[in-house]
Amino acid sequence: MKIDKNSISDYNSQYKDTFEQEFRFVSDSLEQKGLNVESVVKKISDFQVAIPSWALGAGGTRFGRFSYGGEPSSLEQKLNDIGVLNALTKSAGAVSLHIPWDIPDDTQAIKEIAESHGIAFDAMNSNTFQDQPGAEETYKFGSLNNTSKNVRDYAIQHNLDVIRIGEELGSKSLTVWLADGANFPGQLNFQNALKYTEDSLKSIYQYLPEDWRMFIEYKPYEPNFYSTTIQDWGTSFMLANACGEKAFTLVDLGHHLPNTNIEQIVATLLLKGKLGGFHFNDSKYGDDDVTVGSIKPYALFLIFNELVYGMENNPQNPSLAWMIDASHNIKDPLEDLLQSIEAILIAYAQALLIDQKDLREAQLQNDVVKCQEILQDAYRTDVRPLVKAARLKANAALNPLDAYRSFEVRKELIKERGNKTIATGL
Amino acid sequence: MKIDKNSISDYNSQYKDTFEQEFRFVSDSLEQKGLNVESVVKKISDFQVAIPSWALGAGGTRFGRFSYGGEPSSLEQKLNDIGVLNALTKSAGAVSLHIPWDIPDDTQAIKEIAESHGIAFDAMNSNTFQDQPGAEETYKFGSLNNTSKNVRDYAIQHNLDVIRIGEELGSKSLTVWLADGANFPGQLNFQNALKYTEDSLKSIYQYLPEDWRMFIEYKPYEPNFYSTTIQDWGTSFMLANACGEKAFTLVDLGHHLPNTNIEQIVATLLLKGKLGGFHFNDSKYGDDDVTVGSIKPYALFLIFNELVYGMENNPQNPSLAWMIDASHNIKDPLEDLLQSIEAILIAYAQALLIDQKDLREAQLQNDVVKCQEILQDAYRTDVRPLVKAARLKANAALNPLDAYRSFEVRKELIKERGNKTIATGL
Amino acid sequence: MKIDKNSISDYNSQYKDTFEQEFRFVSDSLEQKGLNVESVVKKISDFQVAIPSWALGAGGTRFGRFSYGGEPSSLEQKLNDIGVLNALTKSAGAVSLHIPWDIPDDTQAIKEIAESHGIAFDAMNSNTFQDQPGAEETYKFGSLNNTSKNVRDYAIQHNLDVIRIGEELGSKSLTVWLADGANFPGQLNFQNALKYTEDSLKSIYQYLPEDWRMFIEYKPYEPNFYSTTIQDWGTSFMLANACGEKAFTLVDLGHHLPNTNIEQIVATLLLKGKLGGFHFNDSKYGDDDVTVGSIKPYALFLIFNELVYGMENNPQNPSLAWMIDASHNIKDPLEDLLQSIEAILIAYAQALLIDQKDLREAQLQNDVVKCQEILQDAYRTDVRPLVKAARLKANAALNPLDAYRSFEVRKELIKERGNKTIATGL
Amino acid sequence: MKIDKNSISDYNSQYKDTFEQEFRFVSDSLEQKGLNVESVVKKISDFQVAIPSWALGAGGTRFGRFSYGGEPSSLEQKLNDIGVLNALTKSAGAVSLHIPWDIPDDTQAIKEIAESHGIAFDAMNSNTFQDQPGAEETYKFGSLNNTSKNVRDYAIQHNLDVIRIGEELGSKSLTVWLADGANFPGQLNFQNALKYTEDSLKSIYQYLPEDWRMFIEYKPYEPNFYSTTIQDWGTSFMLANACGEKAFTLVDLGHHLPNTNIEQIVATLLLKGKLGGFHFNDSKYGDDDVTVGSIKPYALFLIFNELVYGMENNPQNPSLAWMIDASHNIKDPLEDLLQSIEAILIAYAQALLIDQKDLREAQLQNDVVKCQEILQDAYRTDVRPLVKAARLKANAALNPLDAYRSFEVRKELIKERGNKTIATGL
Repeated sequence: MKIDKNSISDYNSQYKDTFEQEFRFVSDSLEQKGLNVESVVKKISDFQVAIPSWALGAGGTRFGRFSYGGEPSSLEQKLNDIGVLNALTKSAGAVSLHIPWDIPDDTQAIKEIAESHGIAFDAMNSNTFQDQPGAEETYKFGSLNNTSKNVRDYAIQHNLDVIRIGEELGSKSLTVWLADGANFPGQLNFQNALKYTEDSLKSIYQYLPEDWRMFIEYKPYEPNFYSTTIQDWGTSFMLANACGEKAFTLVDLGHHLPNTNIEQIVATLLLKGKLGGFHFNDSKYGDDDVTVGSIKPYALFLIFNELVYGMENNPQNPSLAWMIDASHNIKDPLEDLLQSIEAILIAYAQALLIDQKDLREAQLQNDVVKCQEILQDAYRTDVRPLVKAARLKANAALNPLDAYRSFEVRKELIKERGNKTIATGL
Repeated sequence: MKIDKNSISDYNSQYKDTFEQEFRFVSDSLEQKGLNVESVVKKISDFQVAIPSWALGAGGTRFGRFSYGGEPSSLEQKLNDIGVLNALTKSAGAVSLHIPWDIPDDTQAIKEIAESHGIAFDAMNSNTFQDQPGAEETYKFGSLNNTSKNVRDYAIQHNLDVIRIGEELGSKSLTVWLADGANFPGQLNFQNALKYTEDSLKSIYQYLPEDWRMFIEYKPYEPNFYSTTIQDWGTSFMLANACGEKAFTLVDLGHHLPNTNIEQIVATLLLKGKLGGFHFNDSKYGDDDVTVGSIKPYALFLIFNELVYGMENNPQNPSLAWMIDASHNIKDPLEDLLQSIEAILIAYAQALLIDQKDLREAQLQNDVVKCQEILQDAYRTDVRPLVKAARLKANAALNPLDAYRSFEVRKELIKERGNKTIATGL
Repeated sequence: MKIDKNSISDYNSQYKDTFEQEFRFVSDSLEQKGLNVESVVKKISDFQVAIPSWALGAGGTRFGRFSYGGEPSSLEQKLNDIGVLNALTKSAGAVSLHIPWDIPDDTQAIKEIAESHGIAFDAMNSNTFQDQPGAEETYKFGSLNNTSKNVRDYAIQHNLDVIRIGEELGSKSLTVWLADGANFPGQLNFQNALKYTEDSLKSIYQYLPEDWRMFIEYKPYEPNFYSTTIQDWGTSFMLANACGEKAFTLVDLGHHLPNTNIEQIVATLLLKGKLGGFHFNDSKYGDDDVTVGSIKPYALFLIFNELVYGMENNPQNPSLAWMIDASHNIKDPLEDLLQSIEAILIAYAQALLIDQKDLREAQLQNDVVKCQEILQDAYRTDVRPLVKAARLKANAALNPLDAYRSFEVRKELIKERGNKTIATGL
Repeated sequence: MKIDKNSISDYNSQYKDTFEQEFRFVSDSLEQKGLNVESVVKKISDFQVAIPSWALGAGGTRFGRFSYGGEPSSLEQKLNDIGVLNALTKSAGAVSLHIPWDIPDDTQAIKEIAESHGIAFDAMNSNTFQDQPGAEETYKFGSLNNTSKNVRDYAIQHNLDVIRIGEELGSKSLTVWLADGANFPGQLNFQNALKYTEDSLKSIYQYLPEDWRMFIEYKPYEPNFYSTTIQDWGTSFMLANACGEKAFTLVDLGHHLPNTNIEQIVATLLLKGKLGGFHFNDSKYGDDDVTVGSIKPYALFLIFNELVYGMENNPQNPSLAWMIDASHNIKDPLEDLLQSIEAILIAYAQALLIDQKDLREAQLQNDVVKCQEILQDAYRTDVRPLVKAARLKANAALNPLDAYRSFEVRKELIKERGNKTIATGL
């Protein structure tokens, strides 16, 4: 299934008039406030978020899984799915692979498929939280933090393999997420676990290609329920510093304790030049991995406020690797991803509307009421016409979700692939 | 300080053109979707939220308090402050008094002042969490749940006194918030504490005037840090049922454990006809009592979705008592309240835009994606022109906060009252 | 694998002297305080906790599962595993079955095996959170709360089937745990979902045999991540009241929001005669289902304090159904269960030491310091000799875990069953 | 009021026989396991925890305060109160002062009083979270992080004043706790606030005497309810590194988000040689500041496990500054502190019982069950006789709380000071 440019043009034509009316209204009122709307639209249009290969099939919980028809059962099919997302939005121009689930049989062929969809290879993900059939060592009691040197070496080697595969595909970064930790007090010697982790990360880092970056993820709990060795940004930051200048912290929105002020963490990392990547999702209770913006859209906006500020003011921080890391337990995965992309672009657009100069002024005067007004004014603006304008500019669909449904994509995929496929991986 | 109608008309005239343009745009696009905009505007206009007398001065924390100039030091001045809010918004047409802080010296005079501002007397609040100078009994170890019959009787009598004062003023309801609980395991016999509370509430209830209602508030912790006797809606609901049909549960947004799904509680209480009142505020960590909508505006919208549904579909539930229960630690209290009122009206307006028929249809088809789209479409709409329209209709200010500042209200209040007054109460 | 009485006697003989010394010391000092040690030991000895059939194999998370050797692959083998636990502890004399995982092929044979191990059939568990192969309806969008009458009827019928199977085995209760809820705002109409749930539960209730009880479990989240229809004790209590006097609330320790005061909920339910059952486990973050007492043993003690009080003072509440509901992700399941049983008995023993008369006196005097001292004195006492005495009395092993290891039970089970079996169910 | 040695000897004599019996029993069974009981007792006896001067009066919440009779109203009286605690326990041989509440009028006299009680001057605490009468600048919008250079300089100068006063008294460390943060999104520019804080801390640090240490406290929220500039250990650690080798992180048990694994933070800081001090208290919900060990004693034990390990294995980390930072809302403050001291010593003693060699061995074998057994065995041991032995050795009371009551200390204090004194400070 591939959506061609013409179908999108045809689809758009029916909504163009309404769109133009909306856009003119929003655009006019923003220009009146002194905003450069064209520049905002361009920024939205340039924003690209990677889709992880594992997000294209139905997710599940420890209580079970309800599968979805037409799930992709090969890397090729996963790329085709992302191709659909990218054709509809022109904001999903990258894939993030997971090894060993996505080892290409024919690298060249895979690169060509990706290219045909305009998809780049973003960060590579290693997996040291599951045992693969035939594995020589087990990660049951940890990987990079394991008390056994053999297991640590095995996990390090796996990461080096992932880098090699990534190099062939043209990726430029490695994301290390470690489930390593303990389910019970006493199980781990915290100090040794941390030292082993640091040493192992350094071992991987020393083989990192010159133009690559390494992202170190953190998470307070799950799948371990007492402690996780890299439990918070502070630990990740410390380890990234220990590794070197190509190592960075990666923030996943769902990986925080209740009530954490995530935007402040983002600001700190940007100031220190150590924010490497960002995994989008949303949650109400734990690492729920639900659709971006479906639970706390204002928090997402506040985070984007810091990101926009950092991208403007922190040359010390490299450009960021964006990825959607959600799980789709009851929705069509592609529809869910379209909703996530929309929520991301909306939050980004709102953040771009913040009058940074006024805000700075109000902060200097400790005019707390006005600071809040400035943020809420941006947030309460209906920015959807700006997002649509960005899409129109890029030949994407004005209303991607509606287009997806009107093109009957899922029906087509089920016809192609059947109702019982299961996406590789989780 | 009193703001007259003419100043507001003058103020509005300068923004009228912009407003009309905005309103027409939003109104047109909503009407096109089949919405009755006039009815929405009317509902917004009819919405009245009570201001508690204690919210007009600076709040504080256990670490101290930074006072504000021009704070009201008498009940008269408090009413005048609410008069300002009501003149600017026409949405603050009620006061909620706290006894013993607000015992009127001259009831008739107070009633006249209130009437002159268009302010009704909403729920009366009793105070059994502090000892007043000269008190015969101490609430240090509880009030209605106390092991001592003398203390319980003393607290019951206080509530009866509050009812009497309320009757003279024309109030029709009593809100009982109990700090009663324990700071340490073992301190309380939970079963006895609950039984005493139930008996005490019944004693108060039996003297409740025929046309009054009693609201029973719940809260998980603070000021007690191990247990609170009425810790959750389930306990409050049980007690309200035990008292009788004039007893209801009152929901304060800040009185919940982390991650609680409050909108579901609201729906349950509405279904059972036992939701009596609502205290608005916002919070990130605990009972932070910050400006409504300043932290989790989407959660507020979801709650209003349930309220709108209930007001439409639950004749078994009486009309609700709305109140803002926030604390103003660093903002001008009146500005803070204006921001809260705005946030409430915006959330209410957004909830009124939800297409309940489409939503019902999507729910029946388990079209989860569409359900979300319907809610988000309403939420993402810029409804501020609708709120302004409601205000214009009622002769309130188009932009209350801006008007407040342009009228230099605080400067005036400081001139009148001085810089060192302290609001009675907390 | 079956452990006979003689091996246990032999095992115990080597520790008898040390035990007797310890017991005499503790016993003497408790008797001196006026405690009836014999009665305490008898109560400990009488305490029986059910083992759920699904807890005998390795658990897992959504990120994967590390299997364990010698897992039981049939109901017979599960009963044999519990037989081992019961022989070692004489506190695990019941099993809680899960349908459809544990439908007996030959009911009579199963009953005989159970009897040979001294195992009774405790509460039956229905499963409406997963779709079984060939299922006619799907629970993807709910079961008893589903918008579709067909699905609700299907789920009701399943519960009636479970009752029937339970009757044949001699069980006397049904536990209903519902995953029903929503992953996203808008997905569910809360009021209808609650009404459907109530109606469905009543339909099941009306077929409940005269001498049966129905337990209604609650849980705030997981596997649904936005709302769960029976989200808290208040909802469960309301539903149990609506069903009738044979319906009760069931408390699972892991099913609460952060910081919930569970012991207060227990006290309230006991007072109202509506506490039906109890699922033991422990957790630090969410429903982690780790070993009982491994994270918050003092909280467990405080809960037992309420349970002991209720069993003594609340004739209105029936005797409770106790069960361990833990998951064993990295430990040998049987060892994990032995640790859980030990933790339960220790907490129970400590609670039995509390001087209720002194506590009552201190509470009446508001001597908070002394209340705490009384609880802590009981908690700080080393009660392990009392638990051992109870076991010795019942011909169980003095040190069950040590005995399990010295008998090389797991090695034996692997020899019998192999290394690759997978327990039926999750 | 001063308790002399003879009264304590007399008091002890009546409990000596029972004590000796208990001690012999515990001691024998521990020695049999290979433990050096004498060394454990010595370590307990050496342990000294500072009492903060503000903890000797009744605390309160934002809802009010219930005062206590006989509260100390001068620094002299505060030292006398600590003298009572130290006489009874010989574990409270230090005071931690708070400036400006405790500025001595006559330094020499104060030093003599302290010496007469065996009290050393531990860390000095500065106060930049409240405005003092006549203050030239206000901390309403922050101190070391303020946008105004004048305010920052004022706060820096205050800290230098505190150092000067501390030097005169013989203190060797400064604790900086900052309330600095924001109540609302937008109020603060996070990056600037952090930079200002870093610069201000460095300014203070450069005047730190050669043999002093600076402790940087962190806290996620309260009194600010949206963000705190030093929100977590990671931020504090980063700032301590930026200042230099005499700067350290200070951990206060109550300053963490729900469910934080604090013991892991402790281990990380010890490994990095950056753990400076420790504030003991306990909490169920937020920074509740209740009696140490009254809510989560097992968590306290796990933390002590890390501390004991670090004191043994981390020469890179300096000796720690221990302090009790609790608030006494309804208990006699001195009784509350006695309960806290007892809980600390018990947790310390339990941690000292852990067989580190066995634990290490079990960890290397991934014998998770055994790891847990080792910890629980230590925790379940009744160590009170060891704590008593340590006290007896030091001429302290065998049962300090009981002795306090039998000496009628509070009655005496009320006689001396009256019923209406209010402790200076909060």
